[in-house]
Amino acid sequence: MTDSTSASTSVPAPVSAPLEPSGSSGPGAATRFDGLHNPTFLQACMRQSTPYTPLWLMRQAGRYLPEYMATRSKAGSFMGLATNTDYATEVTLQPLERYPLDAAILFSDILTVPDAMGLGLSFAQGEGPRFAHPVRSEADVARLEVPDMAKLQYVFDAVSSIRRALRQDGKGRVPLIGFSGSPWTLACYMVEGKGSDDYRLVKTLMYSRPDLMHRMLAINADSVAAYLNAQIDAGAQAVMVFDSWGGVLADGAFQEFSLAYTARVLARLKRLGADGQVVPRIVFTKGGGQWLSDMQALDCDVLGLDWTVNLAQARALVGGTENTAGKALQGNIDPNVLFAPPAAIETEVAKVLQSFGTPYRGSGVGPTHIFNLGHGISQYTPPEHVAALVEAVHRLSRSMRG
Amino acid sequence: MTDSTSASTSVPAPVSAPLEPSGSSGPGAATRFDGLHNPTFLQACMRQSTPYTPLWLMRQAGRYLPEYMATRSKAGSFMGLATNTDYATEVTLQPLERYPLDAAILFSDILTVPDAMGLGLSFAQGEGPRFAHPVRSEADVARLEVPDMAKLQYVFDAVSSIRRALRQDGKGRVPLIGFSGSPWTLACYMVEGKGSDDYRLVKTLMYSRPDLMHRMLAINADSVAAYLNAQIDAGAQAVMVFDSWGGVLADGAFQEFSLAYTARVLARLKRLGADGQVVPRIVFTKGGGQWLSDMQALDCDVLGLDWTVNLAQARALVGGTENTAGKALQGNIDPNVLFAPPAAIETEVAKVLQSFGTPYRGSGVGPTHIFNLGHGISQYTPPEHVAALVEAVHRLSRSMRG
Repeated sequence: MTDSTSASTSVPAPVSAPLEPSGSSGPGAATRFDGLHNPTFLQACMRQSTPYTPLWLMRQAGRYLPEYMATRSKAGSFMGLATNTDYATEVTLQPLERYPLDAAILFSDILTVPDAMGLGLSFAQGEGPRFAHPVRSEADVARLEVPDMAKLQYVFDAVSSIRRALRQDGKGRVPLIGFSGSPWTLACYMVEGKGSDDYRLVKTLMYSRPDLMHRMLAINADSVAAYLNAQIDAGAQAVMVFDSWGGVLADGAFQEFSLAYTARVLARLKRLGADGQVVPRIVFTKGGGQWLSDMQALDCDVLGLDWTVNLAQARALVGGTENTAGKALQGNIDPNVLFAPPAAIETEVAKVLQSFGTPYRGSGVGPTHIFNLGHGISQYTPPEHVAALVEAVHRLSRSMRG
Repeated sequence: MTDSTSASTSVPAPVSAPLEPSGSSGPGAATRFDGLHNPTFLQACMRQSTPYTPLWLMRQAGRYLPEYMATRSKAGSFMGLATNTDYATEVTLQPLERYPLDAAILFSDILTVPDAMGLGLSFAQGEGPRFAHPVRSEADVARLEVPDMAKLQYVFDAVSSIRRALRQDGKGRVPLIGFSGSPWTLACYMVEGKGSDDYRLVKTLMYSRPDLMHRMLAINADSVAAYLNAQIDAGAQAVMVFDSWGGVLADGAFQEFSLAYTARVLARLKRLGADGQVVPRIVFTKGGGQWLSDMQALDCDVLGLDWTVNLAQARALVGGTENTAGKALQGNIDPNVLFAPPAAIETEVAKVLQSFGTPYRGSGVGPTHIFNLGHGISQYTPPEHVAALVEAVHRLSRSMRG
């Protein structure tokens, strides 16, 4: 079996399938996800009922795991890990060996695309990412192009390899999520050259020369779309756009410089994987809670939420009702909860689940929740606390469904 | 004339005065603010009509001004400036000499209160504030007490001195705002010991030992109330609570650990200054845009907003209508706009003014706007760009009133 024929080969349902009344046939074949041992994550993405609330954790393959640090030490560096198919596969699977998570996410970085554009990505020891050639002038912007996707083949190879590894027992254990940074978030790093406290350089460019910023964002959007489509071709079963820095924008500027280009990405994405299954799309804007009603218009299936968002209000605003359009919601516990003792973690898990309320339980589509952190897990997290979180989410969410 | 008799000595109006229908008598005598050459800021705080939109800038006395750097260099350090009455007065007035701003704000720091608690504040060259003795253990929390306000006499002396300086020509030129950090924001620094990217230590304490956090916050709230009341006694004509780190809290945690203690401060504040005038209270939660409806219940007059907030929506939500209760709104242009050329600054000023819409124009009370940045001004700001901003706000807001 190859990636492209690993699951259902039935005729794909039309894109509108998730909105069909449940009726006699239930959701379309392309959204049945029955080629997996554990399809709960994909089902919840498509607003279908699941027996418990599925969960995965942003940055679940990361520095808090000693086995990750061991592999990284063999690889020599972060990019040494990310560009080596075997290592990338190994670390992607590590959290799944420890915890019964409901999805895997490709081990990579959001900045691979600008690296392929020639900006020279590196990760200095103990610091964040850095570009050797940031975009600072009109000439720098003029030089930008959608990169040759061949330069990112290491990412697509990792996707295929991880899918193979997940399918060792004949069926995929859990689905694999591919991802990219959003056009705006990439632009932040491309201009600043590294992380920033105030985004002064990128905002100076944006407010002074919006024409240049729009050109950069258009190139970024087309690059991200090509990149995610290639991940889908390689076997990614869901894709997520990380708008990590959308929340630093002013109201108005967010819609113009971030949201519009995330929409441009979504418009160019393949709706179905090579296996004929729908590939759910997730959009996560950190700090975007005030713009949920704007994001409702995005052509995506899931909205990721950080911990500042009230899930009950978000559900009422964008979650839809039975057999009406809406977004599945993903999130949103504060990663710092994981520093508290297990009993306190369970209390906070219960608050998040109760804030969303009982998810949809019928045979059509309705409001659903995918549990996650509101941001990436901290490197200082005790691994046994993650076990307590996962156990609490599964147990409490199952009991809520009564 | 002393501070306590510098303005109207008429009988104070009841606290409910701003909500009285305009009728024949207009707003109560205590909110007439006629002891000032330029009362527009205080009038707008109390939702009274003004001929243009008043403005001031958070951190308006700061490092972007060469004259500030000169005084600071004489003083030797930030705390050398803040603790010296003459220097604090000098730098407070510097931006008023350059720009026709509509309010002065005390030059000080939000961390003076924990410093008075004995935590040992210092500002290392080129870094942010740092506490020598952060609060990390149950014993540390047990040791905390409301500090003797005599330790903060240098702040109250500065307030009196600035008021005297503003009154040199017989009337106060513009009103003086006093301020403090919010109980939660102080707790962040007290536990972390300095600024933080993830607030891991303070949130670990909060989620692990909420009892200790509540004790610390109660002490902070009572300290902040005593501190602001002493500023009011010394002559502060408005007070502002900076909840700079409220926005890092999860929904639910914000209400419990930040908002409740800001409310406790407000409940203990004097409503009238020694001169019998109402002292408007401003609450600014950076990143708090999603919680405006919660903040509506605060016993304050003005809500400060950062640049992520849509002013039209905020006005509809909490701004009230003619002669109904509501909050004046303060904010909210992105400080990074000031790096763009003057023409672009004017465009962005117009967007902010238009987003709020035409302020109330009657003789009672109604929705009003005080222009400000959404956060403190950057040290890299070109001073001539600030002049362009101030000019544009006054001119455009006057013309909007037709």
